[in-house]
Amino acid sequence: MTSAPYTLVLLRHGESEWNAKNLFTGWVDVALSDKGREEAAHGGRLIADADVLPDVLHTSVLRRAITTAHLALDACDRHWIPVRRSWRLNERHYGALQGKDKKATLAEYGEEQFMLWRRSYDTPPPAIADDDPWAQTGAPAYAELADEVLPRTECLADVVTRMLPYWYDAIVPDLRTGRTVCVAAHGNSLRALVKHLDGMSEEAVVGLNIPTGIPLVYRLDEHLRPTVRGGEYLDPAAAADAIAAVANQGR
Amino acid sequence: MTSAPYTLVLLRHGESEWNAKNLFTGWVDVALSDKGREEAAHGGRLIADADVLPDVLHTSVLRRAITTAHLALDACDRHWIPVRRSWRLNERHYGALQGKDKKATLAEYGEEQFMLWRRSYDTPPPAIADDDPWAQTGAPAYAELADEVLPRTECLADVVTRMLPYWYDAIVPDLRTGRTVCVAAHGNSLRALVKHLDGMSEEAVVGLNIPTGIPLVYRLDEHLRPTVRGGEYLDPAAAADAIAAVANQGR
Repeated sequence: MTSAPYTLVLLRHGESEWNAKNLFTGWVDVALSDKGREEAAHGGRLIADADVLPDVLHTSVLRRAITTAHLALDACDRHWIPVRRSWRLNERHYGALQGKDKKATLAEYGEEQFMLWRRSYDTPPPAIADDDPWAQTGAPAYAELADEVLPRTECLADVVTRMLPYWYDAIVPDLRTGRTVCVAAHGNSLRALVKHLDGMSEEAVVGLNIPTGIPLVYRLDEHLRPTVRGGEYLDPAAAADAIAAVANQGR
Repeated sequence: MTSAPYTLVLLRHGESEWNAKNLFTGWVDVALSDKGREEAAHGGRLIADADVLPDVLHTSVLRRAITTAHLALDACDRHWIPVRRSWRLNERHYGALQGKDKKATLAEYGEEQFMLWRRSYDTPPPAIADDDPWAQTGAPAYAELADEVLPRTECLADVVTRMLPYWYDAIVPDLRTGRTVCVAAHGNSLRALVKHLDGMSEEAVVGLNIPTGIPLVYRLDEHLRPTVRGGEYLDPAAAADAIAAVANQGR
């Protein structure tokens, strides 16, 4: 049996107000819906039941991930653990699509273009204009970030590139101390991380969906390789159902 | 006019479930009441209206302060700022009184003893037994703390002594970078800090009450001395009313 000294708990935020409205969100800083708040607390109870209590938390700087982590950790009595936040864990920047209705976008651009933007590895949507109401230019949360690093659009490949430095420099050192690390983030920043952990190809990651609110636990060996490829959901049946539902989103 | 390069925002947590029940709380990790959650969000709106937006947050490790900070910062769009937590910002440890009804304690021990425990500077309540259901011995949040540092009871003088190292080593360095610092904490850890800031005597601090949920802003000069003694509440009328109400608590 492979030894697994390290434990990583991935948590995708629960449903947001814009998930519920079927709008492209990206870096727009929307709140959780009531359902999303429930999902977050439920995720925390699953963490408690499975006894994979986090010792340290990493989140994006978006409120739907921050609130999810707050509610989940409160539910498993780990609200007091140290926290770090980084824009590098943010959702993929959805470019000019941010704030647009998914169904209307599908109708306007057609299935092929729509799926390229949503699911291809290296085709970003058109860049958002700096004066677009849904752009992040000038937002206080990114005021200390060099302008050339602030994305105006991203494909999944871009997310991998900007997420990995945080993995190596912030998350891995916490794992190496033997602490159980929780990463509360987003569909695409977590896909980027899972791609890295599982050594997935660019083709394979296109088909990967990570459900909201169900903690995904990776036990990692001394080389930080997963002992179980794909990790283990704390509620596998619910995860399978949710993955099927996400695959049909926008149809 | 005195120059005030530094801004400090003190926020006492909103009403907890045990404030509402009139029980001694101390280090018992109770949740906010619905009223307390409202107070926290209202505090955040006051912060936004006054434009004293925090750049960095310090909290205790108790959920009533953590949740207050989460709700207040969410309400003023500063949920994404860096956070640090420390047991040194915790409420005063109430010793063997933790979990006891305030009115019943007053009846059992009499006014003089009751007021000594509640308000004297240097008379701690009896120490809590390690096997008391309301003791913190063995609690995961304090697992890394040397046992001899974990309090079993505290008077306000003890709180000053254990809070000040965090002030000097964690909060002051953040202030010195020019950041607006928010400290979300408790009645007595904030009284300890205010005593230090205002240079209050041990006698004077006995009469000091800090209301819940109303941000108290200190502008500090280059020597970290307040430009206005006692700071400025963002809602002075509500603060005055609340201070009068707190003074009557337990009667």
